Amino acid sequence: MKKEDFVKEITNIEEDFAQWYTDVVRKAELADYTDTKGFIAIRPYGYALWENIQNYTDKKFKEVGVTNLYMPVLIPESMLQKEKDHVEGFAPEVAWVTMGGGEELEERLCIRPTSETIMSTMYAKWIKSWRDLPILGNQWCNVLRWEKETRPFLRSREFLWQEGHTVHETKEEAEEMTLKMLNIYADVIENLLAIPVLKGRKTPKEQFAGAEATYTVETLMQDGRALQAGTSHYFGQNFTKPFEVKFQNREGKEEYAYQTSWGTSTRLIGAVIMAHGDNRGLKLPPKVAPIQAVIIPIAQHKEGVLEKATELYETLNQHYRMKLDDRDNCSPGFKFNDWEMRGVPVRIEIGPRDIENGVAVLVRRDNLEKETVNLNELEDRLGTLLEEIQTSMFEACLKRREEKTTIAYTLDEIVKNLKENQGYVKTMWCGDVACENKIKDVSGAHSRCIPFQQEHLADSCPVCGKKADIMVTWGRQY
Amino acid sequence: MKKEDFVKEITNIEEDFAQWYTDVVRKAELADYTDTKGFIAIRPYGYALWENIQNYTDKKFKEVGVTNLYMPVLIPESMLQKEKDHVEGFAPEVAWVTMGGGEELEERLCIRPTSETIMSTMYAKWIKSWRDLPILGNQWCNVLRWEKETRPFLRSREFLWQEGHTVHETKEEAEEMTLKMLNIYADVIENLLAIPVLKGRKTPKEQFAGAEATYTVETLMQDGRALQAGTSHYFGQNFTKPFEVKFQNREGKEEYAYQTSWGTSTRLIGAVIMAHGDNRGLKLPPKVAPIQAVIIPIAQHKEGVLEKATELYETLNQHYRMKLDDRDNCSPGFKFNDWEMRGVPVRIEIGPRDIENGVAVLVRRDNLEKETVNLNELEDRLGTLLEEIQTSMFEACLKRREEKTTIAYTLDEIVKNLKENQGYVKTMWCGDVACENKIKDVSGAHSRCIPFQQEHLADSCPVCGKKADIMVTWGRQY
Repeated sequence: MKKEDFVKEITNIEEDFAQWYTDVVRKAELADYTDTKGFIAIRPYGYALWENIQNYTDKKFKEVGVTNLYMPVLIPESMLQKEKDHVEGFAPEVAWVTMGGGEELEERLCIRPTSETIMSTMYAKWIKSWRDLPILGNQWCNVLRWEKETRPFLRSREFLWQEGHTVHETKEEAEEMTLKMLNIYADVIENLLAIPVLKGRKTPKEQFAGAEATYTVETLMQDGRALQAGTSHYFGQNFTKPFEVKFQNREGKEEYAYQTSWGTSTRLIGAVIMAHGDNRGLKLPPKVAPIQAVIIPIAQHKEGVLEKATELYETLNQHYRMKLDDRDNCSPGFKFNDWEMRGVPVRIEIGPRDIENGVAVLVRRDNLEKETVNLNELEDRLGTLLEEIQTSMFEACLKRREEKTTIAYTLDEIVKNLKENQGYVKTMWCGDVACENKIKDVSGAHSRCIPFQQEHLADSCPVCGKKADIMVTWGRQY
Repeated sequence: MKKEDFVKEITNIEEDFAQWYTDVVRKAELADYTDTKGFIAIRPYGYALWENIQNYTDKKFKEVGVTNLYMPVLIPESMLQKEKDHVEGFAPEVAWVTMGGGEELEERLCIRPTSETIMSTMYAKWIKSWRDLPILGNQWCNVLRWEKETRPFLRSREFLWQEGHTVHETKEEAEEMTLKMLNIYADVIENLLAIPVLKGRKTPKEQFAGAEATYTVETLMQDGRALQAGTSHYFGQNFTKPFEVKFQNREGKEEYAYQTSWGTSTRLIGAVIMAHGDNRGLKLPPKVAPIQAVIIPIAQHKEGVLEKATELYETLNQHYRMKLDDRDNCSPGFKFNDWEMRGVPVRIEIGPRDIENGVAVLVRRDNLEKETVNLNELEDRLGTLLEEIQTSMFEACLKRREEKTTIAYTLDEIVKNLKENQGYVKTMWCGDVACENKIKDVSGAHSRCIPFQQEHLADSCPVCGKKADIMVTWGRQY
């Protein structure tokens, strides 16, 4: 298959971003549709990405004392109903189990859309005194939300995620935890996935159902649409009161505890695809790539080529995640395209003449630059090259985000900016949900967040003209 | 709390093994009951055990080329029904989702009891030629089986497990894979969990629903009941035919592929508890223990004690999974009992006099032996001690199994042996399911397996008296 044919298989990214996305997901064998409507199968290459995200994230969690646990996947209806805002937010999109073991159930059970209710129920049993606090629990699991329109990784009826649920003695400690976890998400997304994040607080309208405050890390995709990549919620006593999560405090008095929850999901895989990919397919940051470099022997039937390629593989594989593509039924050109499509950060070519000269050719996936490297320097050079790629992918992404961020002072400007330059629009805001709704109605953009890094752009709200102290970033969303 | 009070909290193991088990599960904070009937919550200490099992096992899987993936948790009823034996085996114990997003579903969906059907469906889409084979997929996930009677870890409506599903070009390769995975399970259970296994093939009656052959690793608990700890199935073409998992073979002809599946679960946690525990509670093999050694300062209010204990912790924690118990609201004696109950393999005591003498006291959980060790030798000694404990726990378990294994030549002897000495009974067997049923009916014992290590105990079947070439091991089961 020629390069042209390969490229033809993937829709042009400028022409139809949504179709390009789906093509990449399927051609790079990240995921596939299944016969369970709205559910995807995550294929080994996609799952390996998730494992790398999990390993990195779980280590960070453990460093701050978080421990993993596991709660039932089914939640009784009466339990879901205990917190009013929460049930209103989630009940319309849950799946119900009504039969088990051949019999109709007395009470129907929902498949968890999130686990605040059952976590709080169990925590109430486990906590007696301030000495039992904090509880810093987390689970890696599947959740279900019965979405009408689905897209692989971005909006699927089932997805994999982690949900952390912590309980604290004081408001201050819980608030601190909420931000600590948000910062871990920022670390994962920026340092592992090479995507810059916008950190801030959600407006009350966009808060999690039942939260007192929701904090978010927002990312911007190449088509200018925003993707909420992780959220961290401060609940105060909103759940501990209805679920009676009480403890005896240091003064011997009974008190309701303070709670947080925080989550991130396989959506992050969608973010990686849409933040970095191009017309050749996927482009993976080296730190998260399941294969960091692929060795492609040139004229592999010639004497000594496969041997040398294998030797290189054995050496490099001790330090990097390597692949040797020794398929004998396709050409080097086919292999180049194939691994470019799968986003492998570096390709190493080695043929008879290279061996003669004691060199190999390294090709970067991110900018396609080539370099010739002495074999005795290859191991070190590959390491620095992977780091360079990681950094330059982050920087490219940051530059794109800056180009796609504008400021608006009037409602017309918001609409105009979003039409001309999809991306983030920054405005002042008076704090009134009516103005937030107005902006959404006329522009299609939701408030992304109230960024932590505030700027005083103007004195008044672009909608109502009243005094405005808050800067909000807006954007269309996934 | 005194030692007597502590022990009182756990039912005596000789008096009521079942209640002892439940007490240990709850007092050691491994798991708890939930408000979703028949479902447990796995608490952090129990989940840490599962993570250690996962890490060890997953590494072994990857060494033989297995890759992880993820399939939908919900399976349409029509898909479950495609393989006759399979649906007959599982349909009676599944949970059905009949409502989603506020609407009744057109077709009901079951929560996976196991994933042969959906794996086969997807594999059929992904396999075209022999070049696409083998596919060696595995998923770590939750499954549901609507059990009537449940027990934490042993028989729960939801449990966590891994299920591997592989597809091969030839019968021979698939059969080889089936045994390769069985051997990995044997490795995990013997080397990580310190429990000897009996390896063999299940009789046709005890096979997995839809399998051509089921292989098993059987373990024996302290009460003499057997626990099936992992199984590996060879399916032949039983699933690939109804699910049309076809490939073009090396001769260019279309052929049905050959399939395997293999699984092990959080049951293994139950096995660890029941194989090793005693009247003081849990007893964990060092390799799987979340905490390998706990440091308990003696007279910790005295000058220098906490400092020295902390210093030891910092040093040892670089090599071992350590815990420093510096709680100021309970006595060393309380702490001794507390960590014994939680099964921590080694306790390190350090007090003012020890510091003066430059020593610490090490106490083994498995046999309670004490030794005094110079502080400058502590790091090395702890390492060898943990190894000694691991080995001697395995050996104790093996010895117990040998004591609880008898031979029987008649039906009466089978019944008598199982009454006098609960455990394994070895007999010859003619191969007739009628004789197998008879043994089960009169003795309550299921055939555990046809062990790979066969012995010719006699010439005839203990039930019908006909010629018998097969040796079977029997036992009551969990």
